[in-house]
Amino acid sequence: MRPLSLFIATSLDGFIARPNDDLSFLKRVEKEGEDYGYEAFTARIDTILIGRKTYDWVARELGASHYDNGEREVYVMTRTPRPPSGKTVFCSGNLEELVVKLKAQEGKGIYCDGGAEIIQELLKYDLVDEMILSVVPVLLGDGVRLFGEGRPEQDWELVKSQAFETGLVQLQYVRQQ
Amino acid sequence: MRPLSLFIATSLDGFIARPNDDLSFLKRVEKEGEDYGYEAFTARIDTILIGRKTYDWVARELGASHYDNGEREVYVMTRTPRPPSGKTVFCSGNLEELVVKLKAQEGKGIYCDGGAEIIQELLKYDLVDEMILSVVPVLLGDGVRLFGEGRPEQDWELVKSQAFETGLVQLQYVRQQ
Repeated sequence: MRPLSLFIATSLDGFIARPNDDLSFLKRVEKEGEDYGYEAFTARIDTILIGRKTYDWVARELGASHYDNGEREVYVMTRTPRPPSGKTVFCSGNLEELVVKLKAQEGKGIYCDGGAEIIQELLKYDLVDEMILSVVPVLLGDGVRLFGEGRPEQDWELVKSQAFETGLVQLQYVRQQ
Repeated sequence: MRPLSLFIATSLDGFIARPNDDLSFLKRVEKEGEDYGYEAFTARIDTILIGRKTYDWVARELGASHYDNGEREVYVMTRTPRPPSGKTVFCSGNLEELVVKLKAQEGKGIYCDGGAEIIQELLKYDLVDEMILSVVPVLLGDGVRLFGEGRPEQDWELVKSQAFETGLVQLQYVRQQ
């Protein structure tokens, strides 16, 4: 089974964005030549799963090629179907069924880049195998929470924790069997 | 000025208790001879500040002497005044004024042991100088959140991060000036 991973930055108080999807808090930990393991992480995945709002935000801010580099398969969950574009397909079906199908296929790992809504659903159905959380040393005070409520309790296993010069701490967990 | 510190355990998803104040998730990281720095921490404080609900819970479950060991001053914030007991006083006045007064006194540090309501107020008024957060490798899925909403944004500085064999990661921050 291919694992499904989260790789996401969060504030100390658990927000992944300020209200209005403002990600400017990430600038505090930007450092030339430091990608916090992002390239090494993406080298072990070949499939991306994202929510439609996150996709549209990234496509607008960074360009759709941030996800679809011609090599990876990109699945965008949306309530409003759209025709495929390159290796990007838009899915309106059942998230759980899609993920179970993707996990059973041959290939590298699956990376869910958010947003909070799809992460909440994946955790609820116990479909997340790995979480790499980058904790930024700021209290945002308000915004979009990484972790919602109404999920079952789950044990996780700490694999690694690493502190960086910028004050970012990266925590890597796998789902405890 | 005496610093005010938090020393608190939280689940990975930011809850300090399950619904109904259930703290059983802490059992996952209990290990003989491992106090996660609690004794060393309490050696540098001589004043405890807590909310009334937390006080009553601890007094019932662990005994009032958990806080009031005859040496420390204990301040319990409550809406319903009570007569003092030993070195424990019950305060119904303004939290900000009390903390400003306590900080200006001679002595060791001040330790706020929660609950979430008083922590939220202290952070809102920018009265917290240090946070020692012990992240337990569990997603609780629901419960009492450590960090509420509606606070101003604040930068913090990572002092130390330490991973323990149990999978608990302890993060120590001081308020960035």
